Amino acid sequence: MKIAVDAMGGDHAPKEVVLGAMKAVKELPSVTIQLFGDQQKIKEHLTDDHNIEIIHTEETILSTDEPVRAVRRKKDASMVLMAQSVKDGVSSACVSAGNTGALMAAGLFVVGRIKGIERPALAPTLPTTDGKGFVMLDLGANADAKPEHLLQYALMGNIYAEKVRGINRPSVGLLNIGTEEGKGNELSKAAFLLLKSADFNFIGNVEARDLLEGAADVVITDGFTGNMVLKSIEGTAQALFSMLKQTFTSSLKSKVAAGLVKNDLRALKNQMDYTEYGGAALFGLNAPVIKAHGSSNANAIYNAIKQANSMAEQDVAELISTVLNDKK
Amino acid sequence: MKIAVDAMGGDHAPKEVVLGAMKAVKELPSVTIQLFGDQQKIKEHLTDDHNIEIIHTEETILSTDEPVRAVRRKKDASMVLMAQSVKDGVSSACVSAGNTGALMAAGLFVVGRIKGIERPALAPTLPTTDGKGFVMLDLGANADAKPEHLLQYALMGNIYAEKVRGINRPSVGLLNIGTEEGKGNELSKAAFLLLKSADFNFIGNVEARDLLEGAADVVITDGFTGNMVLKSIEGTAQALFSMLKQTFTSSLKSKVAAGLVKNDLRALKNQMDYTEYGGAALFGLNAPVIKAHGSSNANAIYNAIKQANSMAEQDVAELISTVLNDKK
Repeated sequence: MKIAVDAMGGDHAPKEVVLGAMKAVKELPSVTIQLFGDQQKIKEHLTDDHNIEIIHTEETILSTDEPVRAVRRKKDASMVLMAQSVKDGVSSACVSAGNTGALMAAGLFVVGRIKGIERPALAPTLPTTDGKGFVMLDLGANADAKPEHLLQYALMGNIYAEKVRGINRPSVGLLNIGTEEGKGNELSKAAFLLLKSADFNFIGNVEARDLLEGAADVVITDGFTGNMVLKSIEGTAQALFSMLKQTFTSSLKSKVAAGLVKNDLRALKNQMDYTEYGGAALFGLNAPVIKAHGSSNANAIYNAIKQANSMAEQDVAELISTVLNDKK
Repeated sequence: MKIAVDAMGGDHAPKEVVLGAMKAVKELPSVTIQLFGDQQKIKEHLTDDHNIEIIHTEETILSTDEPVRAVRRKKDASMVLMAQSVKDGVSSACVSAGNTGALMAAGLFVVGRIKGIERPALAPTLPTTDGKGFVMLDLGANADAKPEHLLQYALMGNIYAEKVRGINRPSVGLLNIGTEEGKGNELSKAAFLLLKSADFNFIGNVEARDLLEGAADVVITDGFTGNMVLKSIEGTAQALFSMLKQTFTSSLKSKVAAGLVKNDLRALKNQMDYTEYGGAALFGLNAPVIKAHGSSNANAIYNAIKQANSMAEQDVAELISTVLNDKK
């Protein structure tokens, strides 16, 4: 299995991307990697090129670039060439920690949509307190959605949870402002009816406050709401950890206490760290496209490559296409 | 100033409501309180009836009641009589910790909307890490909203922040998935244009992840999104505190540490406790209607009464009405 990786994307590129790629080929013997980017900069960190091939390019898409324009104009950008390699069938999947919007555009315009999918969706796996995690989509690929799009998200999320995450009959929940049927805005009320008659394990509405406790294996929402909820969770966790840090450095007594629980607190923080679960998958494209977090370290990149590999091995795109065509 | 209080609403009613009312009349010498509810049960806790009057009724609205039907049918419920006292001009404001939906219905049907306001909005004051807090609306009074409703929310929130919270030229932000103009779904894009040309200190889009850091004094969003964000913040804080508790009881060493920082951690938890900021105000009604949190203790009830008193003293409803009519 060959996987294309954008060596120049992310806050710590190319170093952490190269280190992550080296870890991936070591841990996953069947994987070879194409690294797209500046050969000289990549080689500074590439201490072992076993199963790793460099495709040199000097153009890159910046995090500040306007996504669609960048993808259309920077034809030789590492991210665009990476997507092209998937389109050409050279690589089976791709991974980038770069500009999210640009990666979605490259996925849409270069890799291409599965026939019948109207809107690809961005789907990260988020942490739960029991460590199992859950898949949530859409997290912002499309700000507006119709009820039928939410049904498609559910079909795709269900396949992913079953095939890639190995969950038997995953529970699928609709994110809503109350658990009872009939709650919500016009979109969620209409989506509820569609999901109810679908062919997977729909468990009804789930509330945002129960997500981290593992309310469902797959959580469905529109991109605007999903993005809001994700950022609320992130912001709250960040604010609490920073207040906690302040608490633990406020006096000698608290510093002593901090020393005693330092490792436990680090473990707690890691438990909430969703880079452990891999990147966010773009569902609905002809091949797996994985968005690793912008601040990814080598381990996060490795997890994203593992995830891309698993999605390609399980042929998730093909399965989605089959299920969609059966529906018609 | 006379304030009507639903003695039977909330998880700890009537005890904590009665204790909160006694605290309020002691701290606010100009306030007298009407307590609506079961006289015998109220008297069990009422050790001093100075400036407190009991209006006896045996009917109550339960948290499980269907809101609109309950308000229409239970004409003698403590919450309905409380609202009627405001409608009749006997009391100037009212407070309940009971069924949120029923209180919104009682506000709408009994107290009545300000002329020109299409949708009343539920507006709590939420905590920030610096302790200042911010007002956010709508938090779920209406699941669906149009751009013009968001403009009305902003007008009302601005008046409240200035008059009741005492903030000079409050910053008003639109909750959105990115800070740049042009980001968002159809609703937020259209609302942005309306807010931009309005007559208050609109600072543009704010992101959910920055709310607790104090992104704006007034944050505007539709009820569906607002409810999602609020519950995400609550759920994340709750999950983290419960994980923290686990961490601190996992070993002898961590228990020792917990002993050392117990008071600091309690202070941290209190800082995130939004009952400290009073209840959620229902904006857009002819008089102040305050929803105290269902789990309110005496102090939370006291804060909600103080808030109702302050809104009535500042004549917020009248101000909102004037600003709306000037707009026309």
